[in-house]
Amino acid sequence: MKSASPDAKNPMWSGRFSESTSELVAAFSESVSYDARLYRQDIAGSQAHARMLAKVGVISQSDADVIVDGLDRVLGEIESGAFTWKTALEDVHMNIEARLTELVGDAGKRLHTGRSRNDQVATDIRLYVRDSIDVLLQLLDTLAEGLLGLAEQEADSIMPGFTHLQIAQPVTFGHHMLAWREQVLRDRSRLVDCRKRLNLLPLGSAALAGTVYPLDRHYVAQQLGFDGVTENSLDAVSDRDFAIEFCAAASLILVHLSRWSEELIIWSTPMFGFVALPDRFCTGSSIMPQKKNPDVPELVRGKTGRVIGDLNALLVLMKGQPLAYNRDNQEDKEPLFDAIDTVTMCLRVYADMVPHIVCKREACRAAAAKGFSTATDLADYLARRGLPFRDAHHVVGAVVGLAAQRDCDIAELSLETLQGFSPIIEADVYGHITLEASVSARKTYGGTAPDQVRAAIARARSAKP
Amino acid sequence: MKSASPDAKNPMWSGRFSESTSELVAAFSESVSYDARLYRQDIAGSQAHARMLAKVGVISQSDADVIVDGLDRVLGEIESGAFTWKTALEDVHMNIEARLTELVGDAGKRLHTGRSRNDQVATDIRLYVRDSIDVLLQLLDTLAEGLLGLAEQEADSIMPGFTHLQIAQPVTFGHHMLAWREQVLRDRSRLVDCRKRLNLLPLGSAALAGTVYPLDRHYVAQQLGFDGVTENSLDAVSDRDFAIEFCAAASLILVHLSRWSEELIIWSTPMFGFVALPDRFCTGSSIMPQKKNPDVPELVRGKTGRVIGDLNALLVLMKGQPLAYNRDNQEDKEPLFDAIDTVTMCLRVYADMVPHIVCKREACRAAAAKGFSTATDLADYLARRGLPFRDAHHVVGAVVGLAAQRDCDIAELSLETLQGFSPIIEADVYGHITLEASVSARKTYGGTAPDQVRAAIARARSAKP
Amino acid sequence: MKSASPDAKNPMWSGRFSESTSELVAAFSESVSYDARLYRQDIAGSQAHARMLAKVGVISQSDADVIVDGLDRVLGEIESGAFTWKTALEDVHMNIEARLTELVGDAGKRLHTGRSRNDQVATDIRLYVRDSIDVLLQLLDTLAEGLLGLAEQEADSIMPGFTHLQIAQPVTFGHHMLAWREQVLRDRSRLVDCRKRLNLLPLGSAALAGTVYPLDRHYVAQQLGFDGVTENSLDAVSDRDFAIEFCAAASLILVHLSRWSEELIIWSTPMFGFVALPDRFCTGSSIMPQKKNPDVPELVRGKTGRVIGDLNALLVLMKGQPLAYNRDNQEDKEPLFDAIDTVTMCLRVYADMVPHIVCKREACRAAAAKGFSTATDLADYLARRGLPFRDAHHVVGAVVGLAAQRDCDIAELSLETLQGFSPIIEADVYGHITLEASVSARKTYGGTAPDQVRAAIARARSAKP
Amino acid sequence: MKSASPDAKNPMWSGRFSESTSELVAAFSESVSYDARLYRQDIAGSQAHARMLAKVGVISQSDADVIVDGLDRVLGEIESGAFTWKTALEDVHMNIEARLTELVGDAGKRLHTGRSRNDQVATDIRLYVRDSIDVLLQLLDTLAEGLLGLAEQEADSIMPGFTHLQIAQPVTFGHHMLAWREQVLRDRSRLVDCRKRLNLLPLGSAALAGTVYPLDRHYVAQQLGFDGVTENSLDAVSDRDFAIEFCAAASLILVHLSRWSEELIIWSTPMFGFVALPDRFCTGSSIMPQKKNPDVPELVRGKTGRVIGDLNALLVLMKGQPLAYNRDNQEDKEPLFDAIDTVTMCLRVYADMVPHIVCKREACRAAAAKGFSTATDLADYLARRGLPFRDAHHVVGAVVGLAAQRDCDIAELSLETLQGFSPIIEADVYGHITLEASVSARKTYGGTAPDQVRAAIARARSAKP
Repeated sequence: MKSASPDAKNPMWSGRFSESTSELVAAFSESVSYDARLYRQDIAGSQAHARMLAKVGVISQSDADVIVDGLDRVLGEIESGAFTWKTALEDVHMNIEARLTELVGDAGKRLHTGRSRNDQVATDIRLYVRDSIDVLLQLLDTLAEGLLGLAEQEADSIMPGFTHLQIAQPVTFGHHMLAWREQVLRDRSRLVDCRKRLNLLPLGSAALAGTVYPLDRHYVAQQLGFDGVTENSLDAVSDRDFAIEFCAAASLILVHLSRWSEELIIWSTPMFGFVALPDRFCTGSSIMPQKKNPDVPELVRGKTGRVIGDLNALLVLMKGQPLAYNRDNQEDKEPLFDAIDTVTMCLRVYADMVPHIVCKREACRAAAAKGFSTATDLADYLARRGLPFRDAHHVVGAVVGLAAQRDCDIAELSLETLQGFSPIIEADVYGHITLEASVSARKTYGGTAPDQVRAAIARARSAKP
Repeated sequence: MKSASPDAKNPMWSGRFSESTSELVAAFSESVSYDARLYRQDIAGSQAHARMLAKVGVISQSDADVIVDGLDRVLGEIESGAFTWKTALEDVHMNIEARLTELVGDAGKRLHTGRSRNDQVATDIRLYVRDSIDVLLQLLDTLAEGLLGLAEQEADSIMPGFTHLQIAQPVTFGHHMLAWREQVLRDRSRLVDCRKRLNLLPLGSAALAGTVYPLDRHYVAQQLGFDGVTENSLDAVSDRDFAIEFCAAASLILVHLSRWSEELIIWSTPMFGFVALPDRFCTGSSIMPQKKNPDVPELVRGKTGRVIGDLNALLVLMKGQPLAYNRDNQEDKEPLFDAIDTVTMCLRVYADMVPHIVCKREACRAAAAKGFSTATDLADYLARRGLPFRDAHHVVGAVVGLAAQRDCDIAELSLETLQGFSPIIEADVYGHITLEASVSARKTYGGTAPDQVRAAIARARSAKP
Repeated sequence: MKSASPDAKNPMWSGRFSESTSELVAAFSESVSYDARLYRQDIAGSQAHARMLAKVGVISQSDADVIVDGLDRVLGEIESGAFTWKTALEDVHMNIEARLTELVGDAGKRLHTGRSRNDQVATDIRLYVRDSIDVLLQLLDTLAEGLLGLAEQEADSIMPGFTHLQIAQPVTFGHHMLAWREQVLRDRSRLVDCRKRLNLLPLGSAALAGTVYPLDRHYVAQQLGFDGVTENSLDAVSDRDFAIEFCAAASLILVHLSRWSEELIIWSTPMFGFVALPDRFCTGSSIMPQKKNPDVPELVRGKTGRVIGDLNALLVLMKGQPLAYNRDNQEDKEPLFDAIDTVTMCLRVYADMVPHIVCKREACRAAAAKGFSTATDLADYLARRGLPFRDAHHVVGAVVGLAAQRDCDIAELSLETLQGFSPIIEADVYGHITLEASVSARKTYGGTAPDQVRAAIARARSAKP
Repeated sequence: MKSASPDAKNPMWSGRFSESTSELVAAFSESVSYDARLYRQDIAGSQAHARMLAKVGVISQSDADVIVDGLDRVLGEIESGAFTWKTALEDVHMNIEARLTELVGDAGKRLHTGRSRNDQVATDIRLYVRDSIDVLLQLLDTLAEGLLGLAEQEADSIMPGFTHLQIAQPVTFGHHMLAWREQVLRDRSRLVDCRKRLNLLPLGSAALAGTVYPLDRHYVAQQLGFDGVTENSLDAVSDRDFAIEFCAAASLILVHLSRWSEELIIWSTPMFGFVALPDRFCTGSSIMPQKKNPDVPELVRGKTGRVIGDLNALLVLMKGQPLAYNRDNQEDKEPLFDAIDTVTMCLRVYADMVPHIVCKREACRAAAAKGFSTATDLADYLARRGLPFRDAHHVVGAVVGLAAQRDCDIAELSLETLQGFSPIIEADVYGHITLEASVSARKTYGGTAPDQVRAAIARARSAKP
């Protein structure tokens, strides 16, 4: 960003002041270095405000036209890089308005009628978060779609299902990808709800009390795509719930991605070898030539703390603030922007990477074949033959103990041996304790059976417009 | 809670183990000391599960009847205080099931067919949070109603509106109460959305992969008042989004209450004296006999950190956990329960206190009369007479400077003096810069004018069923 | 805890109040349900205060004797379970003082002369944290000792060293245990510093301003084992830095234990199989009979969030509090106590478990033999023969590529093949790229060579008194 | 920062890779945009490493000379703005080394012998934090000095002391400033301890296991001003305790400043009017011409959340990370740098502002005269005449009740009236219940009596070298 040196005295509010802000304080209190990114929202908001002022007769139509055109020129300057941001003008609002007034004269000075920076910045941020959510919703959809494709491709691929990171029961890789997808759908749903609550226009609240001008707030709301207007002016200028709610939703997205990352990192070790990630998502080592490091998952896992930190920053910021606007609120922007940037970037790389995750089917199946992963199936077999489940559990515990001693799978024990543990076991038992049998038998709604996985995929596809 | 000494060996899963859990480890890993509070949900879930098992033919109808009756007896024992909780049985589920089996024999052992503690506990907690949300929604409604009443009563009471805790413009006390109410409405809306997302049945996911039994999950969901069933078994046993989302919503509730508390504490100082709180919400000092301390607001403000801490605890807990269930998840309960208890208690005392807040109208009005709170009105007066707002702002800055020098209000300056600053000022100016004129003029939708406040109250009342 | 029903009116400060605290508010504001655990510190502090009051002549020696004896009786009652805690008396201080006055009459009423609950509770908590730190220091020493023993036992056991959870270079298991021990030593050092800063007596600060009585604060400090007295009365009653500093140190302890837990959990999977944990630190599954879950590491990892949550709770609590004491501060205790309890319990189980971790040496060595873990050694070999390191790195990258293609270790490639990549390779290369050669060669101070590991152990042992 | 477009293939570790990092991944994983600020530390560390390599004979002295000179040239280029940072080279280390090699050829390639980016970055950050702490210690000293001066100037200025933000007892403004200073001294002490623990050299740990080169780590440590070397290579490359400990200390600094800010903001309201802040630390309003807002305290209070967020980010980052280095750790820098920048800037503006805070003595005294602030003195008067303190408290409660009814101070009640409450009151009572008498009587060590305040100032001055 280009920036000019601070002016000696702030022209916006220095009427009653006898001393200039020191340079240190100017550097401390400026926000344009990070709120300049709101320029598009700020300009759109100002244009809507100007049109409304003319509509209700507070300014002339020609003033409004001049303002709207002037702001279009300012927008052009900013997007072409020709605009000079000045720290001395403190923030994005003052920078744009000052330039507007340079360009169009007195009409520019009339733009601020009936509003304050308090409701102006509240409007800009809401617009910015809303636009960001719209981008995120698209990324989440792409990601969910990628998971669906991968799930379909690996609907029959058997891998160990883990609890406590111990092998529990066989599942399919496709089923696992659908589990990830459920997290994505909830994340989507939370963002939609957050968007709904924030999409109300604060402009017209002025500094805190409303204004004496006969503003048509609903007309402004309509121009800017808001669903309605805020109900109370004191609340509207002091509310930052939407920023916190967004960061909470973003934290959950990162928590989910951190869980996937953890799994991908563990699955990428030579000891697991369940997946391969494309080289372009990995890097090497400056000292160990053989390394292929899962950097993207690691970085994403690492960025989780950052977004949780942003959420905390905002909660602490708002705790105990009296109404209405306090300068503390200027500190809402950097954590919020950081959360938006981080979650956007992380979703982007994951949406890009997920379809290219390679499931190494042999390794997955081989691992599932270890660790007595069908022991539960033996217990279920016994239970269905009438043994109370708790008793069946004990019998199988003893069978596993023997198999562990002999270093073999339970399906490798002879029928006689098995019958020694329980006489109700018969030859058909071997039809229940293979990996494929185990997986196929878990047909409950939402279960891991390939048929269920495919049914879930079909439901997902038909749910889409 | 009554508790018995730990048994030597856990009967539920110790089949293959050669060594007992040490007492230290037992104490470390038990959860019954805090999850016993889930007993009602655990029993309801088990009864629904049993009925369903009979419906689909996995157990006999008579077994189901015996189980349901037995669980009713267990419920009775717990609620009468006759039940003995045993740490050795680890958790609420095992305690109840063990007692059931004592009471009804083998049928009790069949109850656990087709489920696991993983989906069982997920079901219990969702039910518990849902029930807690229903209580909170009622409290929020009571609180919103209380604020509405207070707002109506003080719709005309003038007080200073603050920004930066400096006197900005006059507002009405009623308007301020409606600002608080907006926060309550958003809190309500967030809890409703949280409830919607969590109200899905996880049971039937078994340990992680679904089960081999032909469970009718929708029938169980219907019995327990769930809106549907979870879509993926791996996700269902490992998901704790709802706990985090709840704690995020609870954190925002406390952030709001902390802001009200801050205001009540400041308003209760002798220097402000804007409000009086009933004695029963205050305490005195053990050393200073004259003190009347606003303890309830202070405690509520203090408890904000606690709920934010609970939210953090859960986010950190879930970060980086591979699927599916890990024992870490046992640690979800205490922060969640603490957040529920804290937010419930804080809303209860605030719902109780709010209608009894006494607005000290003279003190409020007197404070508003200080601090040039109608300076903006003078600027607006000038702007409406054609002076660009930015120029009007400068003129008024100079007027305020003079008034400050003379230690008088701007309305006390003579017309000549005022005209010395701007010739467009005329005698009618004094009709715009009194407190009542200032407040009444802020008629924008959501503004502080008593008419607007009353209109907002009317909208609020008509919005209710 | 036994508790009686609330009294109608608080006798301690209700002089000027016309209305009783409601039951709801009483339940909301009481603290005795959790601060009763300070009884020992409260009594010791009161006895020291009474002795000092007599010494400086504020009360008679006989009054002091009566108080000290009476407090000994109260202590006896509490420890025998005969004491009845009353919620109506709010907190531990009032409960004990009220009982004292019942037992000894007017002398008891004189005890509170020259102090306030504000300085009293500050004293009690500091004493309590100090005593807790002393317990933790012992546990950390035991843990460090356990790690030293395990390191000595496994000083030569080769395992893969990981970066990015990819196999990087071979290290020894003993070296890894010493890395854990370094974390313990820093934790110890932080607690020692925290103790040093908190071990100052606040008593004598009274409510906030000091007192009119000629108290001898240094005499009280000396009786209670404080290193000195606090310097400023306003600060002393409002400072909770020590609680936050303690929780920060506790959070780091848990972060460390969470890292060990993560490793133990991963190392315990069948795919790694690097360690075995004793059965008594594990539990089984209610549905999967073959499982042996590393519950203790999982629970410890899960508890990390809890302590970080406690730290947050305290930081949020203190943010923005004006001086001096505010009722918010009552909320300092539960997070602090929870952090103390959690870190104590976690260290206790880890101190118990660590010496019994079984390193499965064959599995560790076999894993290290995979993954080209000595590739760096080949690069170093080339570098020492004059090839710039960056060039050597490229050569070895190509060698590893070929070995990966052929699915063999680089040491299995023929000399001719190796020389094809670089002519400076000679037959002695094979003496540098075995696991043992690799490990033994890393002799830098703090490196993984068994000799270095043993030297580090020797330094550690000699550093102890 | 200047930056060039990414190269196609990373020359540092791409030996075995068949595919380039995508641009998205490159943007996601680069760190040079924020770690470039480590250039000074990186160069100093490399120069020390090169000199040591020559000393122990790993490289020639002439190579070392060439490297040291080349790095000086790189430093010059960076500081003059001539250096081109390249994102494709990922980080500060690679950028500098690549430029060095361009400048000096093969010698540059030998610099990385015996080290890794893992120990290199650990060294750079420790140096950076250490240097930052040294700046902060100076700022804290300046701040403490400023508070001492202000305390001296206002040693006799009476203001109300608050508990629960209610007027409690009179104190002096100087005493209050000394309370702030105590917080500064503890902050200082924590940073000194943090510096002590972090000031150990990690270099020589290489990637994780140490190295085969005969490095003299102590020689490097000595060149860089480290107090010693780290003890264990695995720990050294994975430890980020120092960053967390620093952020915890920084959080406490901000918590303290947030408390001062809260007080300054409240004291600056027209209702209090206890202080005036110089205009240059305040700003005005774009809509309300009369406003003078305490922006600096508000911004500082707002920034508290940010630093607490940074602390959280790091705790979450490190939770559950297995040894040794993981890419997650790259995320340690931005929160750490943000905390350093924020705390530095906040201390700088406070150190600048504190000496210029104007205590408005009349307003402070007038407020203290309200609110029965000497009620405790009356209670103490009674207690010293033999009434048990608890009884005296009750008597004074009743006196205050009457005075409140009559809207007068207790010192304005007649002797007869007072004696009606207790016959032991005599005419000398009026000598104890004036503000000056109250303050002067609180002579306990650390109390608010002007003599004590001056004694504390004298102790503070003599404690300095």
